[in-house]
Amino acid sequence: MSDINHQIRLASRPVGMLTADAWEATEEPAATPGDGQALVEVELLSVDPAMRGWLNDVPSYVPPVGIGEVMRALGVGRVAASEDERFSAGDWVTGVTGVQEYAVVDGAALTPIDVSLAPAETYLSALGISGMTAYFGLLDVGKPETGQTVAVSGAAGSVGSLVGQMAKQRGCRAVGIAGGAEKCAWLVDELGFDAAIDYHGEDVAKALRAAAPDGIDVFFDNVGGDVLDAALTRLARGARIVICGAISQYNAQQAMSGPSNYMSLLVKRARMEGFVVFDYASRYREAATEIAGWLADGSLVAREEVLDGGVAAFPEALLKLFRGENTGKLMLRVRGE
Amino acid sequence: MSDINHQIRLASRPVGMLTADAWEATEEPAATPGDGQALVEVELLSVDPAMRGWLNDVPSYVPPVGIGEVMRALGVGRVAASEDERFSAGDWVTGVTGVQEYAVVDGAALTPIDVSLAPAETYLSALGISGMTAYFGLLDVGKPETGQTVAVSGAAGSVGSLVGQMAKQRGCRAVGIAGGAEKCAWLVDELGFDAAIDYHGEDVAKALRAAAPDGIDVFFDNVGGDVLDAALTRLARGARIVICGAISQYNAQQAMSGPSNYMSLLVKRARMEGFVVFDYASRYREAATEIAGWLADGSLVAREEVLDGGVAAFPEALLKLFRGENTGKLMLRVRGE
Repeated sequence: MSDINHQIRLASRPVGMLTADAWEATEEPAATPGDGQALVEVELLSVDPAMRGWLNDVPSYVPPVGIGEVMRALGVGRVAASEDERFSAGDWVTGVTGVQEYAVVDGAALTPIDVSLAPAETYLSALGISGMTAYFGLLDVGKPETGQTVAVSGAAGSVGSLVGQMAKQRGCRAVGIAGGAEKCAWLVDELGFDAAIDYHGEDVAKALRAAAPDGIDVFFDNVGGDVLDAALTRLARGARIVICGAISQYNAQQAMSGPSNYMSLLVKRARMEGFVVFDYASRYREAATEIAGWLADGSLVAREEVLDGGVAAFPEALLKLFRGENTGKLMLRVRGE
Repeated sequence: MSDINHQIRLASRPVGMLTADAWEATEEPAATPGDGQALVEVELLSVDPAMRGWLNDVPSYVPPVGIGEVMRALGVGRVAASEDERFSAGDWVTGVTGVQEYAVVDGAALTPIDVSLAPAETYLSALGISGMTAYFGLLDVGKPETGQTVAVSGAAGSVGSLVGQMAKQRGCRAVGIAGGAEKCAWLVDELGFDAAIDYHGEDVAKALRAAAPDGIDVFFDNVGGDVLDAALTRLARGARIVICGAISQYNAQQAMSGPSNYMSLLVKRARMEGFVVFDYASRYREAATEIAGWLADGSLVAREEVLDGGVAAFPEALLKLFRGENTGKLMLRVRGE
C-alpha cells in the first residue's frame, strides 16, 4: 500500500444539484498520529443522503464542511499506527474518517468492530449508522404498537429497508414507498414488507388508501416533498411522523417545499417529530445487540451496494443516491479487493 | 320578542376568500322542542376562524356544514321552553346553536352557565372554547416548563391573547406576534407579554432573534404561512410547535402553503403537533376552575369585541377575523341590548 493519501475535498459550495466542480481531488503523504490518535487505513466509506446537507453553510446539527476541507464521511478501516493504548496496528475500527485513504483520528472517536461476527460492510449498514437511525427513529420517536401500520418512504434505501423490517419484528404492518417496480418487488418478496408502492408509477395517496386501509400510524419519512404530502392525507388518528430526511429536497435551488397538508396534524391529532441519531450514542450498544440477533437468525436482511473506484469515485457515488439508483446501503470501497 | 327565527344559512361553498354570496338570510317560525330538547333564545354568537374550515367539503374533525343548512356556531342564550328536565325557561346555557335567533338543541348538548359569576360573554371567551383551546393546547400539547420561552402567533386574537397570559402564569417568557403596533402595545402594556412583534412592520425571524434570544421552546401557532416559517428558524432544541390553526391560509384558493423550514424539526429535535379541543371535553371543568381563579384575581384579562347587528351581521363579522381587525374574542350580539 502506498503511503500517499488520496483525498476528496470540498472545492466550492454547491447550489442546487451537485456537480463535479464542487469537489477537488488532492494527495499528500499520510500523516503521523499524535498522542491519543491513530492512523487508520480506510477500507470502506459510507455514502449518505445527509452529506448533501453538510455542504450547505447553514446552522445544523453539525457544522458545514469547510471549503478546502476533506469531505466528512463515516468509514471503516484498519489501524496502521496507533498512539492510543486502546488500539494496535491491524485493529478494525469505524469512525469519521473523511473521504480519504488515510485518516488520523482521535482514539476516543473510534469504535472497534469485530469482523469475525459480521462483515466489515455491516458496520456501515445494519450495525452502523443506518441501523441505529432506523432503530431509534422507528422505535423511540415513532413508537409503533403491535398491529399498527408503519409506512416508510425511501423504503429501498439503507435506513428505509431496515425500518420496514424492524416494524415487522414489532408486529406491525409494513408499507414501503420506493422508486421502481424492481425495488418494490424486492421489499415485498425478499424483505417481507406487506405492501410496496412505486412512486414513479402510482398515485401515492391513492395507493396508500389501499395499502393502509386503517390509516398510517407511523410514517417514517426519508424523502419529503410530494410523498410526505401524500402520507399526510392518510394518517390514522394520533399518528406519528418521524422526520429522518428529505432527499427529494436536498438539491432544491429554491426554498424547500414544505408539507402543504400539514393541517392534517390537527385533524388527526398527529405529530411530526425530528431526531438526530447521534443523540442516541449512549444506547448504540443496546440497538446493535438486538439488530445482531436479527441478522444472526436471518429475520433481518441488510443489503449493501459497494462501489469500486476508490475515493475518486466518491462524487459520482453521491449522485447515485440522489438519482435513487441504489438499493440498500450505498458505500464505496477505498482499496482494491 | 318575535317568534320569527332569523337565520344565516350556507348558500354555496366558497372558493378562496369568502364573499357575501356564500350566505343566505332566511326566516321561519321558531321551532318547538321535542322530548329531551330545549328551545334557546340565542343572545351571543361566537365568531371563529375555524368556521372557514367547516365550509370546505373535505374530511375534518367535524362534518362540513351542508349547503342550505344553518351555519354552525357556538352560542350563549336563555332557555325559552324546555322538554328536558335539566333545564327550565330562563336558564342561561351555552352550546352549538348555529347562526340564528332561536335554536332547538338536545339538552345533553347544552351546558348551563352562571352569569352571576361572570358575564355571558366570558362563556364564549376565557371560560368558553377559546379558553379551553388556549389552556389544553398550551399546557397539554405544548408542555411549557418554568423559565422557557413561549411564542404565540395571532397573539391579539381570542386564543392567542390567553395563551401568552397563561404562559406567564406558568413562569414562562411570553412573546406575541400580532398585526399592528396598537395590538402589540396592548399585549405588552395590558396583558403582560414580555415582547410583541408586529408582523406587518417587522421581519419576524429577525425580531424573534431579539425577543427569544435562547430560542422558542413552545410555539403556539394560530396563523401558519410565513409566520410559522419564521418561527421554525428560531426553535430551541426540543421545541414543541402546537398547531391550533392557520388563519393566513384558510381562504387560500390554491393548496395551502406548507412550512418550508420544517426540517428544523430534525435539526432541533423538535416536534409539531395538532390537537382538537373537543377531545378535552371531560376536562373542561378543571380548566374553567383554574381560569375562573385567574379572572377573579385579575391576573388574566379576557377581552371581547362584541358586534351588533344581529344574525344579519354575521357574514361581515366573519370577514373581520380574516382581515385581522379584531382584538380579543370576536362575537356577535343577536338581540338588542
